[in-house]
Amino acid sequence: MSVTLYELGGLDGRRYSQFSWRTRLALAHKGIPFDTVAVRVSDKGAIAFSGQDKVPILRDGDAVITDSWRIAEHLEDTHADRPSLFGCGTGRGLARFVNVLVDRTLIPKLVPLLMIDVLTIVDAEDAAHLRRQIEAAFRSDLEALAANRNRDIVGFRRQLDPMRVTLRSQPFLSGATPAYADYALFSLLQWARIVSPYEVLEDSDAIAIWRDRMLDLFDGLGRTQAPRASQIPKPELTG
Amino acid sequence: MSVTLYELGGLDGRRYSQFSWRTRLALAHKGIPFDTVAVRVSDKGAIAFSGQDKVPILRDGDAVITDSWRIAEHLEDTHADRPSLFGCGTGRGLARFVNVLVDRTLIPKLVPLLMIDVLTIVDAEDAAHLRRQIEAAFRSDLEALAANRNRDIVGFRRQLDPMRVTLRSQPFLSGATPAYADYALFSLLQWARIVSPYEVLEDSDAIAIWRDRMLDLFDGLGRTQAPRASQIPKPELTG
Repeated sequence: MSVTLYELGGLDGRRYSQFSWRTRLALAHKGIPFDTVAVRVSDKGAIAFSGQDKVPILRDGDAVITDSWRIAEHLEDTHADRPSLFGCGTGRGLARFVNVLVDRTLIPKLVPLLMIDVLTIVDAEDAAHLRRQIEAAFRSDLEALAANRNRDIVGFRRQLDPMRVTLRSQPFLSGATPAYADYALFSLLQWARIVSPYEVLEDSDAIAIWRDRMLDLFDGLGRTQAPRASQIPKPELTG
Repeated sequence: MSVTLYELGGLDGRRYSQFSWRTRLALAHKGIPFDTVAVRVSDKGAIAFSGQDKVPILRDGDAVITDSWRIAEHLEDTHADRPSLFGCGTGRGLARFVNVLVDRTLIPKLVPLLMIDVLTIVDAEDAAHLRRQIEAAFRSDLEALAANRNRDIVGFRRQLDPMRVTLRSQPFLSGATPAYADYALFSLLQWARIVSPYEVLEDSDAIAIWRDRMLDLFDGLGRTQAPRASQIPKPELTG
């Protein structure tokens, strides 16, 4: 049975959707081979088969599942013989909480700061779509949202403090080995890494060290997408 | 083998320590009978046997364990045949994260608002000790910290948003059944309930409904301490 992930695609083959990265890592964790299909943000027609208008979408044999959390539960329940994404019922309950926590407290602190950079890795139609969407959600234009990011990033980093403290005692948020809660948190940093040259963490941050561990997982799956920072000449080299 | 919990005690037999409540619920979850010994905040001599100056302390046979998280891990590891506090390794890792999250993001938003009320349920020496401790930590006097609590409580409630959203999908933070992460979060609300007549949640809040479920656990263990609100005549009844 073939497994296909429909996910956002940008210019030059970039796969930048944070929600899709949750699914990518979940599939790799389960050891399930998968194909991907890139979908443009503004191309709803390409995913009309799913009966809704959002990616990621997973086609697993005859099943079509939407929403990254529902996809994770589907993978866990229908591929129960493969390594567990949650460990146990308690692990699943708490992973759901971490997933919500990332969505509700971290995404709103980081996405507005970097969205301006996303416009340059997608085509003109997608850029216009994303601009409208984020400017409506945050009631400000993207330039203004990014204008003070050197200051505003501090609030985002502070929001990571409980994760940082936890990682002093264990290598992964989920304990000794990575699991879905790690993928949920990593997905946001992976999005940032792919879409923007702006470094959101300080080098010495325990979260940055954990991010490196996450990038190494599954034969470096996360590194199959180049960091945006490596693609844009640094100011000191261009002057 | 007898198990004894040394914990903070206030006037009229009140047991108000939030960290101790984490241990109380962990012991009940494991089905381990225990005795308790009340210790005054300012009476370090009573717990000198532990080689440090903080409660809760658990004496489990010959073992003396301090720090509520370490006590939880001790109970899990040495009473492994009893119901699990974490469910699995992933559940333990994520419970540690929730424990840190409560300590780092919720306690600092609620404790300063209610500490003034704690002074009236402890003796004069403990009251002076607690006042010094909290006023040093928050660099403000307790009266000022509580002065705007009708306004400041909104920030605390907002901080609970990810828990609130999670509880729309499952009855406990840990999923279908309660586990240590629930006890960590509950402990703060139980402290508030015991020390202060001030209601920190709105009645219709999903967190308040979950708190009721938590109070019902283990034959109503949480309810063995009366709510402070019931002990202070309401304004409309005294007018």
